[in-house]
Amino acid sequence: MQNKQYRVAVLGATGAVGREMLSVLDEQRFPASEVVALASPRSVGEDVEYGNRTLKVQAATPESFVGIDLVLASAGSTVSKLLLPEAARRGALCIDNSSAFRMIDGVPLVVPEVNAAAMAKHNGIIANPNCSTIQMVVALGPLHERAGLKRVVVSTYQAVSGAGKKGMDELSSQTIALLNQKPFDVSVHNARIAFNVVPHIGSAGEGGYTDEEWKLVYESRKIMGLPELEVVPTCVRVPVFCGHSESVYCEFERPISVADAREILGKAHGIVLVDDLAEKQYPMPLDCAETDPVYVGRIRQDPNRPNALTLWVVADNLRKGAATNAVQIAWLAAKTGLVHGAK
Amino acid sequence: MQNKQYRVAVLGATGAVGREMLSVLDEQRFPASEVVALASPRSVGEDVEYGNRTLKVQAATPESFVGIDLVLASAGSTVSKLLLPEAARRGALCIDNSSAFRMIDGVPLVVPEVNAAAMAKHNGIIANPNCSTIQMVVALGPLHERAGLKRVVVSTYQAVSGAGKKGMDELSSQTIALLNQKPFDVSVHNARIAFNVVPHIGSAGEGGYTDEEWKLVYESRKIMGLPELEVVPTCVRVPVFCGHSESVYCEFERPISVADAREILGKAHGIVLVDDLAEKQYPMPLDCAETDPVYVGRIRQDPNRPNALTLWVVADNLRKGAATNAVQIAWLAAKTGLVHGAK
Repeated sequence: MQNKQYRVAVLGATGAVGREMLSVLDEQRFPASEVVALASPRSVGEDVEYGNRTLKVQAATPESFVGIDLVLASAGSTVSKLLLPEAARRGALCIDNSSAFRMIDGVPLVVPEVNAAAMAKHNGIIANPNCSTIQMVVALGPLHERAGLKRVVVSTYQAVSGAGKKGMDELSSQTIALLNQKPFDVSVHNARIAFNVVPHIGSAGEGGYTDEEWKLVYESRKIMGLPELEVVPTCVRVPVFCGHSESVYCEFERPISVADAREILGKAHGIVLVDDLAEKQYPMPLDCAETDPVYVGRIRQDPNRPNALTLWVVADNLRKGAATNAVQIAWLAAKTGLVHGAK
Repeated sequence: MQNKQYRVAVLGATGAVGREMLSVLDEQRFPASEVVALASPRSVGEDVEYGNRTLKVQAATPESFVGIDLVLASAGSTVSKLLLPEAARRGALCIDNSSAFRMIDGVPLVVPEVNAAAMAKHNGIIANPNCSTIQMVVALGPLHERAGLKRVVVSTYQAVSGAGKKGMDELSSQTIALLNQKPFDVSVHNARIAFNVVPHIGSAGEGGYTDEEWKLVYESRKIMGLPELEVVPTCVRVPVFCGHSESVYCEFERPISVADAREILGKAHGIVLVDDLAEKQYPMPLDCAETDPVYVGRIRQDPNRPNALTLWVVADNLRKGAATNAVQIAWLAAKTGLVHGAK
């Protein structure tokens, strides 16, 4: 199985996540006999890097997927809804980073460390969860196995790269303008993000929660297979270029100690434990950029409850929060024969 | 009573909070017949502003307090422990912004909106709580009166000015260095703060919590008169110059709705409600700088529990979080005859 080769298309190849998907495919030497970079017509002819090769971006149409085995998509919901069913119909397995299909019954929503088995039953599309969900469930999954997760209160500190390259450009241009006392624009982040924090990511939704916040609720339930899981989220944009941080309070059915949690997380797949406050060792966005793990630290017992912990969880939102998770799914699909390919 | 005049000393007058105390005293036309700026010997001869007057800084010694009615102190715990008992012995009422006396039995720890009555019994020293505690209890106090507060999970987004002028200088110098790809120092904030978040404020304490985090627990209990209150805090420094934000999840004895909370907080003293997500109205550090209120928004019901809410609370940490609260205590002391003075 593993010496098969796959014809791969990256849809949305010029975006921040699309470029990261190409990097991760190359770094991990994913067995691709061919890699096609697809994007909207306005990006056609642009160059994107795939290792030391340069790919010319082609316009994405239904016909682009003829002969493609695997699509990694990060082109937004509208494009995914239009094109991925076409790709699937032509025999490709699509791994989609948009929110288009995540909550649809029958579409697996997968974080390989947590629910790899959910991949088996698909209709050509597997959804990649939202960045802030992925890192949280990677940390909570192994703790749930031990103690039975029932309730989460989470506050996020999300990097501007979650809004793509334009999100990063706005932080740098505003910062430079402010330091030079020049005027600046606000267009991406709802309010000025430089030297500020903005408690509003995405659009306003039910109950005063944003859609970004509801993703943490519903996606976590689906991935963890816990339809009753209580999640109370607050999503906040901070002036950090790369790396989401989360303050995660979690309550379990059964008692769980800090020592238990360290032991469990210390050997969990995909997690790096960084937890020594006295030595100033804790996860920070600064240290996670361009890396694949989920970092967990500041593990503390609720002083009042033996069945509750509070954690600090950090990951590169473009890598494990998006591209790396999608490529992990691709590897799993390859290893389990879910995707076509040729020897 | 109100036409008395007071001889006031500001101890730690060259610090970020000391300067703000002088500003607030002037802005609010506090009835001071005399204002003396005191600081450590190394600051002697420096100028500080008090309205449109310039004060020469004098060295703080026990004799500095002869003839002083009121001391506003923000010079750190060591200096407060040395000098404030001397000032109190000489008849001054001391309002101390350090942590030296906050948790001592018999020392009132006061947020006027919440526990003004606690001031009555003092031994010459009244403690001003920590910045992150003040804004939280201002928001929680009126909700507690209605519904009985029992549990809080709080994650903070604290500005660098909480570490004084040197904390602000470090954010600006690191930001400029990074934008110019130059080397920079890390000395104030445990790690690089520019374009990063640091989940470590203060020193490592019991159970893996920092002393900054324990302040939120113990000070809140003392101010609110709730010795059993459960508080689980995570304190995080963010690259913001001024204004602390807090994501506050709170659980009550009795049901309380978003409408209830808006009504209660909308008419509470010292609070400005900014809560319309669809119109992008929510509190942000950007908007709170150099103002006195506590701003509350993003009020949401826990989707699973009618007796729990989650809030977003912002205040200028140097104003309501320090100087303004101290000056409010001074006004109350003046109005209730707790401080000497002369017609």
